[in-house]
Amino acid sequence: MMINIMDKLYGRVEKRGVVCVGLDTSLDYIPNHIKEDKTSSEAIFEFNRQIIDATSDIAACFKVQIAYYEALGLEGLLAYKKTLEYLREKDEIIIADIKRGDIAATAKMYAKAHFEGDFEADFITLSPYMGMDSIEPYIPYLENGKKGVFSLVRTSNKGAEDIEYLDTIIGEKVYHVVGDKLMEMGKNMISKCGYNPLGGVIGCTHVEEGKELRKRFSSMFFLIPGYGAQGGKAQDVAMYLNNGNGGVVNSSRGILLAYKKQNREKDFALCAREEAIRMRDEIRKAVDSL
Amino acid sequence: MMINIMDKLYGRVEKRGVVCVGLDTSLDYIPNHIKEDKTSSEAIFEFNRQIIDATSDIAACFKVQIAYYEALGLEGLLAYKKTLEYLREKDEIIIADIKRGDIAATAKMYAKAHFEGDFEADFITLSPYMGMDSIEPYIPYLENGKKGVFSLVRTSNKGAEDIEYLDTIIGEKVYHVVGDKLMEMGKNMISKCGYNPLGGVIGCTHVEEGKELRKRFSSMFFLIPGYGAQGGKAQDVAMYLNNGNGGVVNSSRGILLAYKKQNREKDFALCAREEAIRMRDEIRKAVDSL
Repeated sequence: MMINIMDKLYGRVEKRGVVCVGLDTSLDYIPNHIKEDKTSSEAIFEFNRQIIDATSDIAACFKVQIAYYEALGLEGLLAYKKTLEYLREKDEIIIADIKRGDIAATAKMYAKAHFEGDFEADFITLSPYMGMDSIEPYIPYLENGKKGVFSLVRTSNKGAEDIEYLDTIIGEKVYHVVGDKLMEMGKNMISKCGYNPLGGVIGCTHVEEGKELRKRFSSMFFLIPGYGAQGGKAQDVAMYLNNGNGGVVNSSRGILLAYKKQNREKDFALCAREEAIRMRDEIRKAVDSL
Repeated sequence: MMINIMDKLYGRVEKRGVVCVGLDTSLDYIPNHIKEDKTSSEAIFEFNRQIIDATSDIAACFKVQIAYYEALGLEGLLAYKKTLEYLREKDEIIIADIKRGDIAATAKMYAKAHFEGDFEADFITLSPYMGMDSIEPYIPYLENGKKGVFSLVRTSNKGAEDIEYLDTIIGEKVYHVVGDKLMEMGKNMISKCGYNPLGGVIGCTHVEEGKELRKRFSSMFFLIPGYGAQGGKAQDVAMYLNNGNGGVVNSSRGILLAYKKQNREKDFALCAREEAIRMRDEIRKAVDSL
């Protein structure tokens, strides 16, 4: 019997820690010795493959940001497809960071695109602006326990203030309303681990808010961006977790470009591994000291 | 000298009318005689090519919904690329309906993906949930007059009530706030035709609202979905226009599948043309009778 995807993710976090390795792979990030004699697509895939191999025993999951691949057109999307294939072969959990959001007929197409076929992932990210009928079409994939989504709730960028933080007349901010609606939608799909497959993207920039959101959205699994390059610290992150689980913490550039800080181009994959371990342990320590 | 893209779109509406032909091409839509002996990619492109040729003197622009192509993986995206190439060759105006929205670093990648290279379009659609810093990275492409965007503001689906319609404590709904921010951002980029390149997706489901929004967002060009298959009528649409310009009205299934209603599979392109003419004239008549 196939394990429920939320239980699988929860289990990975228990075993490996909360690090989500973000494969936001730009051509600029790839050392020259990898790029030599290769097409762009081959170079990106080879870079990703080495990062995956070097971090898979530390990473709870891998988040692949499709924009970096779309930017190179079909050539980039070939690398995207090959990267996802490789992750599936290795039984790694894949979050496709696509932030799609559209009317139901279109959402069905996106579901087909990213839960089946060339670009099949375990989780996709969604944008809730158009409302819950833009999220419902994904439910059939969630109900059978095979797939999950992470909807944007409260993001880590400055612009989050513009819409997400607007105070509504019912005494809640927009992102509270979004989170409540997701919790309601997911309430009958909570699996053994205590979480439902409608996860939320929750930036880790405010400690107080972390406490509040963790309590309020008790069965929501968090995808937490903002650590490292975007300024979030381990002590902040710890507040968004439940005893070190209930969320994964993404780092992309921090891990992929760790080699640059140390001028160790040839060892880029080892540097990524070292940074992932450092990050995992730093967050563990912060969780333990709560 | 290159003509400003807003002036070009405005000019097309003056000359051809407000119809935006939506190429949301599903494999199911394609008659068997087109599919025979072809790969999926070839069949989709051939269908699109014939629709484009049959409607280009009536269509202000073409909107290509990328989800339908993504659903078929690389094969579908090859058809997407070829469709956009063909539209560019014919000097048709392309709206890539991608509804992307992400942090600035990622938005830059999406801009590269959809304003350059394989998937180059004239306009792209964006989702504003994450705030204005998710839209700013596109501005350099807008300032030089070459490209434009349509941000979601008030969409035509039922779920629009969930987030877009929330009342905020400043006495405005969320979508008002979004529209005001877009107007503010675009105020120094208004071109000869009176519109700025930060357009809005504004569904045509409420007549009274149409009047209000047209007045409030005076320099915002509207991309109007919801006509036909989604229930919007010509009389409604007319209220969202300024004397029949200032917006384009999308129809996808209504045009692509016009042949099904009449059982004229072999004449699918001609049926699309007839439906586009009918729609254009119906809206013209509604505008004239205001």
